Amino acid sequence: MVQDPVTAQSETLRIDGFDDSSSIAQRRLEQQFLGIPSRESAREHLRRLTAEPHVAGTKEGYETALYVRDEIRKYGLAAELKEYDVLLPYPLRPTVVELLAPRRQRLALKEDVLTEDPSSAHARIIPLFNGYSASGDVTGQIVYVNYGLPGDYEALSKLGVSVKGKIALARYGNSFRGVKAKVAEDQGALGLLIYSDPADDGYVQGDVYPKGPWRPASSAQRGSVQYIFQYPGDPLTPGQPSIPGVKRLPIGEATNLTRIPVQPLSYGDARKLLEPLRGPVRPKGFQGGLPFAYHVGGTDDVRVRLNTAMDYQIRKIWNVIARIEGQVENDRWVILGNHRDAWTFGAVDPSSGSTAMLEVARGFGQLLKQGWKPRRTILLCSWDGEEYGLLGSTEWAEENAVELKTKAVAYLNMDSAVSGPNFAAASVPSLWNLIRAVAHEVVDPGSRKTVFQQWQDRASAERHEAPGDQALDSPQTAKISPLGSGSDYTPFLQHLGIPSLDLSFGGDYGVYHSAFDSFYWMEHFGDPTFAYHAAAAQAWGMVALRLADAPALPLYYSDYAAQVREFFDDSMKAAKQRGLASGLDQKPMLQALEDFSREAARLERTRQEVLSQLDADKRDLTNKMKLRQINDALIGAERALTDSRGLRGRPWYKHQIYAPGFYTGYAALPLPDFRQALDDRNEAEAREALARVVQAIKRATAALKL
Amino acid sequence: MVQDPVTAQSETLRIDGFDDSSSIAQRRLEQQFLGIPSRESAREHLRRLTAEPHVAGTKEGYETALYVRDEIRKYGLAAELKEYDVLLPYPLRPTVVELLAPRRQRLALKEDVLTEDPSSAHARIIPLFNGYSASGDVTGQIVYVNYGLPGDYEALSKLGVSVKGKIALARYGNSFRGVKAKVAEDQGALGLLIYSDPADDGYVQGDVYPKGPWRPASSAQRGSVQYIFQYPGDPLTPGQPSIPGVKRLPIGEATNLTRIPVQPLSYGDARKLLEPLRGPVRPKGFQGGLPFAYHVGGTDDVRVRLNTAMDYQIRKIWNVIARIEGQVENDRWVILGNHRDAWTFGAVDPSSGSTAMLEVARGFGQLLKQGWKPRRTILLCSWDGEEYGLLGSTEWAEENAVELKTKAVAYLNMDSAVSGPNFAAASVPSLWNLIRAVAHEVVDPGSRKTVFQQWQDRASAERHEAPGDQALDSPQTAKISPLGSGSDYTPFLQHLGIPSLDLSFGGDYGVYHSAFDSFYWMEHFGDPTFAYHAAAAQAWGMVALRLADAPALPLYYSDYAAQVREFFDDSMKAAKQRGLASGLDQKPMLQALEDFSREAARLERTRQEVLSQLDADKRDLTNKMKLRQINDALIGAERALTDSRGLRGRPWYKHQIYAPGFYTGYAALPLPDFRQALDDRNEAEAREALARVVQAIKRATAALKL
Repeated sequence: MVQDPVTAQSETLRIDGFDDSSSIAQRRLEQQFLGIPSRESAREHLRRLTAEPHVAGTKEGYETALYVRDEIRKYGLAAELKEYDVLLPYPLRPTVVELLAPRRQRLALKEDVLTEDPSSAHARIIPLFNGYSASGDVTGQIVYVNYGLPGDYEALSKLGVSVKGKIALARYGNSFRGVKAKVAEDQGALGLLIYSDPADDGYVQGDVYPKGPWRPASSAQRGSVQYIFQYPGDPLTPGQPSIPGVKRLPIGEATNLTRIPVQPLSYGDARKLLEPLRGPVRPKGFQGGLPFAYHVGGTDDVRVRLNTAMDYQIRKIWNVIARIEGQVENDRWVILGNHRDAWTFGAVDPSSGSTAMLEVARGFGQLLKQGWKPRRTILLCSWDGEEYGLLGSTEWAEENAVELKTKAVAYLNMDSAVSGPNFAAASVPSLWNLIRAVAHEVVDPGSRKTVFQQWQDRASAERHEAPGDQALDSPQTAKISPLGSGSDYTPFLQHLGIPSLDLSFGGDYGVYHSAFDSFYWMEHFGDPTFAYHAAAAQAWGMVALRLADAPALPLYYSDYAAQVREFFDDSMKAAKQRGLASGLDQKPMLQALEDFSREAARLERTRQEVLSQLDADKRDLTNKMKLRQINDALIGAERALTDSRGLRGRPWYKHQIYAPGFYTGYAALPLPDFRQALDDRNEAEAREALARVVQAIKRATAALKL
Repeated sequence: MVQDPVTAQSETLRIDGFDDSSSIAQRRLEQQFLGIPSRESAREHLRRLTAEPHVAGTKEGYETALYVRDEIRKYGLAAELKEYDVLLPYPLRPTVVELLAPRRQRLALKEDVLTEDPSSAHARIIPLFNGYSASGDVTGQIVYVNYGLPGDYEALSKLGVSVKGKIALARYGNSFRGVKAKVAEDQGALGLLIYSDPADDGYVQGDVYPKGPWRPASSAQRGSVQYIFQYPGDPLTPGQPSIPGVKRLPIGEATNLTRIPVQPLSYGDARKLLEPLRGPVRPKGFQGGLPFAYHVGGTDDVRVRLNTAMDYQIRKIWNVIARIEGQVENDRWVILGNHRDAWTFGAVDPSSGSTAMLEVARGFGQLLKQGWKPRRTILLCSWDGEEYGLLGSTEWAEENAVELKTKAVAYLNMDSAVSGPNFAAASVPSLWNLIRAVAHEVVDPGSRKTVFQQWQDRASAERHEAPGDQALDSPQTAKISPLGSGSDYTPFLQHLGIPSLDLSFGGDYGVYHSAFDSFYWMEHFGDPTFAYHAAAAQAWGMVALRLADAPALPLYYSDYAAQVREFFDDSMKAAKQRGLASGLDQKPMLQALEDFSREAARLERTRQEVLSQLDADKRDLTNKMKLRQINDALIGAERALTDSRGLRGRPWYKHQIYAPGFYTGYAALPLPDFRQALDDRNEAEAREALARVVQAIKRATAALKL
């Protein structure tokens, strides 16, 4: 492989968290590892994993579990299935959406069979439906509600239009679909249709499949409408694992389920409802990409029947858990996780990630054969049921909560690992440094620069395109996002307080959750050479290797303090806009953050000192004990940011800094309770939430003290 | 009329520029005036003015001149026609645009006849063409060039696509159409087609005509492609009036004419070219509102013949100049101007403005009959040939340049006065205060608040919609824009240095320069009650009354200094982004602006003092002389901002602060030479341009010194 100057030079440098001599060994190990993930092998994994649709709980899903387990065992690692019994609905029969006015017409609700893409004709493609939709048979006028967020309903209300007793028609985007269901239900809608507007992932973005990578007219987005912002996992066992002996809620008491029927539509179908709508012309921001002026409806001109029938059953799902025993600290775990279940073939989502995991496993297997003895224990977890609501990961994390709280060093997630060439990362701030370091070590296959360089170049190109001031004010390094939800890091970070990250290579991807997220799509658009699958495995494996082997964990809480300060400043701006700033005392928070930052810097210095002393005298047990203490402090600081009382109205979410927003669902709402209280203009709640954040920061500061 | 509390209270207050006793008289006069403009009368004017298409130089155009002259005379004012002989092309026959590949097909190039709108069937509607297009017969591949700005061609060049030897297809918007022609010509295009994308003023904006106010599929935008950013007016007499005895350039030497054929298209026609385009998928920002992914073309898949035949002749145009003699200072002129020629019926553009002018004339006529004796002379000017390139106003301003430089107090423009209810103003900063004051006196017919209050409310609603930080940072008062070009203030402000403004009430307006800018459109969408036509006349007349009667002119140069400081700061930001800031010495400019500001403040204090003394002793001639001196200083400061050398490469443009941008055409590029040099990354030119601005500011400062 080609090395760029930065990488070549950095080979001679000490690796963060390692002393001089272990750096040399680690460099050698890493070079070995980087040579293993291959395009050919990745291509074959993806071909096998996408051979059939493999929805959670199905026979085909079980077969992918066996494939993953057996491949990992072949590479020499221990791997076992881990089964859970969870509430899992399938459509009893395809949903009926029938136009009653302006004319009688049944919508197709079916994705086209494309001659170019052979798998599009597969008989086992699940019909278009939303996971955890209610069963229902409702008839009513259509109201177009844009993205279906509270602000959209406010705009409609100004026009005198309500969805009460009507059927809401929302477009996908700007929020998790479960949020759209929750808001529609709260607004009194009888049912909800969610369609993919061509402005968001169809022809407005580019050529549509199979000519291009974007969504064609017949394609719709499946997906869960579970209220994961309340809690993820099996709806009947919040906070508890779905294992024998655990009491299950009656389904009517599960607070993460919608009560209304919800159904996805293609824009081919949606057009038949949207074009004849009357009522006021859409407010600002509501117009999409179909070729007419959108109206909001809410009149008898368009009336629709929506009839869904879901088969709610307790069904089995299967995680695969592989394990490499740590040789020095087997009671400290580095966990890699990726889900395996897909709505259809899931070439991108999630099989590109599963492929990367298999290539990591193959790499680790070869290192083990060559004598590698990881310092800490490594777990590779292939989750089932993620699409329905992070079922496999949540149940497993809940089952192993006590052990994880003590032992987990970090949780490293990959979901849709590859849909294009653009590296992206989300993580807690303590892991920023490590992600950037690893991005310096992996080569971007397209440009032959380092992934880091390519990532930076793209970021500065985007800054150049941004209007005037932003271009000047933007940070000089590529951004690492906060973690929201929508993938399996949620139980680890937000329920248990384990430092987490999520990595991916993104691109033009318009077939999300459709029958066209297929091997053909990947070979023609996402990653024709499979080089990015290999790069994803390299990056992911490298992060794991460093966390598993570093004598001193490379976690940085000074970055964490700076990031929380930024979140706080943003929130105070929002408070100012809402006229709430004067009632909030900023001092305790600013003081807590200053202390946190100072303590973090002190621990970092100590960590460096001990590391150098380690280098000087390998046999000194005092220093080794000291390092264990330091590492535990670094792991413990993240745990200390959780609050056992949980967030307001959603006790499952314990983390005080990171949670999905109530009204975003996917995207993080940093300082969630504080920010939500500001958005609700509730000063008393804002004060209380801020006080809890201050307490959390103080706990984390205490955790860093040796 | 209903008075809101602000207005009622302000009646008792002194008017800026008036002493106490003359304030009382002026208030009475203004209340009389405000009662005169009427909906019924405005409706009748608009009906008469839009009865037939009245392109400049036609028989119908001449008839509107007679109508305006005779109406004004009826009101008791002196009014005369003023004729010029100018180069004016009409299409010899309708243009032919023929698709040769992927199939042979002639485009319709014709707007539909609509049963709802009777005038759409009028036989004298001029065919779709661009004024001052070259005649030509060219055949070539089509390249889609987005808005046709230099940045768009850069984006195409990165894709390896050029228009050299091909036909460019641009969409309207983001620049004056003459800029699109100039850039296409410079890039080597054989010809240019310009279409109205539905994203810009069609169905993406709202319902299309006749269901709504936006552009329907068959409608295209006529308009001039004169290079007005070089110079406006008769192409053959730059800087000179087109009167007998003035030498005319051979047409080949006119530098404000394009050499390539240019033709407007509807989106119904443009779709036939755009949809079959191959070549790369459009770069970011190129996608429009037609329902497919745009490609840039430049291949043999789409080939077109464009054949234009223009009949270039010297033709007559007719201004109408009405005059009310000043009783105290008849050598000081307040000039109201509006054009009268239209591409078709021109209900909005410009007949709403002509209607407002007739209502102002009617009002002034009644005031005169009731004994009003204006202090200064008032001119009402109805311009011809504006649509082709500000012909009537430019020739008249050039003919009367010497007199205007001495006598003109201000030029008050109205063009498309009413297309909806949203008040908007553009002006030099010295007039901001007066515009805001007048907006406090006129009632907004829709809300029954003052125009000022409604204008502010809209601005803060828009601020609320703006993302986070902007909402906080935006100014607290409604914005008054800088003057660019595209209407008749250009010769007065930018050639002669006369303080100028432009007022309008805007709205949803998608029929610009089409056959549907008709009386029917206005009655159904723009101003169904004609109340905004009356309000436009009220606002315009009020500004004129105050400038005509005020003992001390209400012009504020401290606002001017602050505005130029803002322009300078913005420019320095741009310089910083381009790495040019370090080579530019900011100090002389900052010092000049500080001096300008201080001198302006001093003169304002003096003006107030003299005004109070005037109140104390009416017969004191010293104070009256002093006021004349102060007023002349205030007028002179604007003149001093012009530089007889003109701008770089376009000597007709003399003003150092305001000019249309080379690449915007309509929009102002403040500090034009300085900013252009920065955009060109030419440090030497930037330094020279900045030095000239500093000189201009110093001249203006000197002008303010008594």
